[in-house]
Amino acid sequence: MPANNNRAACAIPIPRYQHVVLAHGGGGQLTADLVHGLFVPAFSNEVLSQLEDQATLNIPLGSAQWRLAFTTDAFTVCPVFFPGGDIGRLAVFGTVNDLAVGGAVPLYISAAFILEEGLPLTDLERVVQSMREACVETSVQLVAGDTKVVERGKGDQVFITTSGVGLVPETVRLSIHNAKPGDRVIVSGTLGDHGIAVMVARHGLDFDPPPQSDAAPVIDLCRAVLSAATAVRVMRDPTRGGVAATCIELAEASQVGVELEEEMLPVRPSVHAVCEILGVEPLHIANEGKVVAIVGPEEADAVLRTMRAHPLGRDAALIGKVVEEHRGMVTVRSRIGGHRILLRPAGEQLPRIC
Amino acid sequence: MPANNNRAACAIPIPRYQHVVLAHGGGGQLTADLVHGLFVPAFSNEVLSQLEDQATLNIPLGSAQWRLAFTTDAFTVCPVFFPGGDIGRLAVFGTVNDLAVGGAVPLYISAAFILEEGLPLTDLERVVQSMREACVETSVQLVAGDTKVVERGKGDQVFITTSGVGLVPETVRLSIHNAKPGDRVIVSGTLGDHGIAVMVARHGLDFDPPPQSDAAPVIDLCRAVLSAATAVRVMRDPTRGGVAATCIELAEASQVGVELEEEMLPVRPSVHAVCEILGVEPLHIANEGKVVAIVGPEEADAVLRTMRAHPLGRDAALIGKVVEEHRGMVTVRSRIGGHRILLRPAGEQLPRIC
Repeated sequence: MPANNNRAACAIPIPRYQHVVLAHGGGGQLTADLVHGLFVPAFSNEVLSQLEDQATLNIPLGSAQWRLAFTTDAFTVCPVFFPGGDIGRLAVFGTVNDLAVGGAVPLYISAAFILEEGLPLTDLERVVQSMREACVETSVQLVAGDTKVVERGKGDQVFITTSGVGLVPETVRLSIHNAKPGDRVIVSGTLGDHGIAVMVARHGLDFDPPPQSDAAPVIDLCRAVLSAATAVRVMRDPTRGGVAATCIELAEASQVGVELEEEMLPVRPSVHAVCEILGVEPLHIANEGKVVAIVGPEEADAVLRTMRAHPLGRDAALIGKVVEEHRGMVTVRSRIGGHRILLRPAGEQLPRIC
Repeated sequence: MPANNNRAACAIPIPRYQHVVLAHGGGGQLTADLVHGLFVPAFSNEVLSQLEDQATLNIPLGSAQWRLAFTTDAFTVCPVFFPGGDIGRLAVFGTVNDLAVGGAVPLYISAAFILEEGLPLTDLERVVQSMREACVETSVQLVAGDTKVVERGKGDQVFITTSGVGLVPETVRLSIHNAKPGDRVIVSGTLGDHGIAVMVARHGLDFDPPPQSDAAPVIDLCRAVLSAATAVRVMRDPTRGGVAATCIELAEASQVGVELEEEMLPVRPSVHAVCEILGVEPLHIANEGKVVAIVGPEEADAVLRTMRAHPLGRDAALIGKVVEEHRGMVTVRSRIGGHRILLRPAGEQLPRIC
């Protein structure tokens, strides 16, 4: 998930903080402030300020049929190994998925490792094997890399930054600026599996079986959706900050309202239980193998059917719609009919989830 | 500098080590072991195993005139600010230079930040400003980014991973596999300025004036060299591991010998003095604004003249030649005529220099 994964009117000015706090990395309000208050103005250019999951580049290569997509993501997940995955799979799938949701065919990735002195080499080998398998699974080639080592206590086992390039057919034009009132909000499966799996593993909570991360590559799923429908406005992988962050970014970027229906949200009972215990909201929890698609109303059924026919989309659900009201904001209608405004988390509930 | 910046017959098998040690990140023998023993076999593909400073990708974009270059680099330099630069400039120039030495026109970069909780925001702003200026100076656009925050004591202020893409004209074919006996080894300026500046700053050594990093973008310099000569076999930026690592990689990849002349090596007196005190070898020290070019003998003069006419190449020097003897090895002829074999450092002399 790039920094460009967060967007907000910079309501809280950065100077309120003198130092970096964990919440600056949490995908919530403070991350949005950092992105909008510091990074975007500093590197001001049209591509970056689109704040898509991937930069789409016009490269003068003599052909008008493809554009190049480019993305980057740092992974600092703790623990490094968790039920359903590890930092290596996450690092490959995260970057590949950021390309896929933009309609790109992912081709090549790079990986830069920052290792902590003392890391068992068997752990590194296990992570690398896992990345290798993830590359094979997604048909991408890892073509560039770097390794740095920092002293014990100056890092945490292993951090991996992956970047990726892919090709977008000229006919595909997805953007978080495209949503229109009437569009439907569809999610390809259950919410929060990844974040909850990591939290449970980190805190050694005793669940049997332990919740599993949903870490998976969504290339095929995205391709199927784009083949089935022409009115797909945008797709996103709702990682850090969850489906809430995705919908809020969308509402702000397209200047529309989004209305979600609580009873339509697909949440596994085990995830729901952990959320209750930890006092967190499934909409805020990171996913690593899901897609949120905003689709014209006439094609919502086709997209839902297509997702449900795919092994990764069996639990796909229509969870809400785009509205004219409360532009820039997301509301959730509860089971008993009340509406509440869905905000970015202001602090950091789930540090180092990806 | 990608992991692909290090190449060696994997003489010391990795299993000798059970844990990551600092030297695995030092650009010496252990880094080479890690690259050749773990990363390259794991991600086995033709592009990666070329081990150039940048991956050159054939992307089916309908034009035969350009190829795409792609590179990545993690920066963990300590201290973050040092005489002549900071981690931000380094992160931009390092990636841009990896593209430039491959003959690419750098176009776009991404940046992923891993911040330590507690980092003063003014420090982050200073780093970002510095990156912004470096982007302007090199005419690249930063188009994708990511930010993660780790708890205090799990990182060290700020780590930055930059990746870059650029275009290589179809006519340019540089490779460390291209060197031939008779070729000349040319370096564009004095050795070791960056590494020594960082070491002096880190240890608070009292030099007046303090040694300055040579951090600079070598795009124009590389372009000038490629315009002046057609027999350029390869160019490299001798960062971590210094000119020694570059020459050893070259000797191994092209299966040639390299013979350097100690008295031809351009070294600033102040750098020489610090090297004596610290007991290090200027050939092993990182540079951040230099180019090593391997050039056919007939064009060595033209390349030298071209470099010396450029502000960044005033101290350019012919420092040795490629020979048929001792294939895969680099020797240095001392001032009194003896030869010694130049090895990769086996341990870590200068951690976190870039």
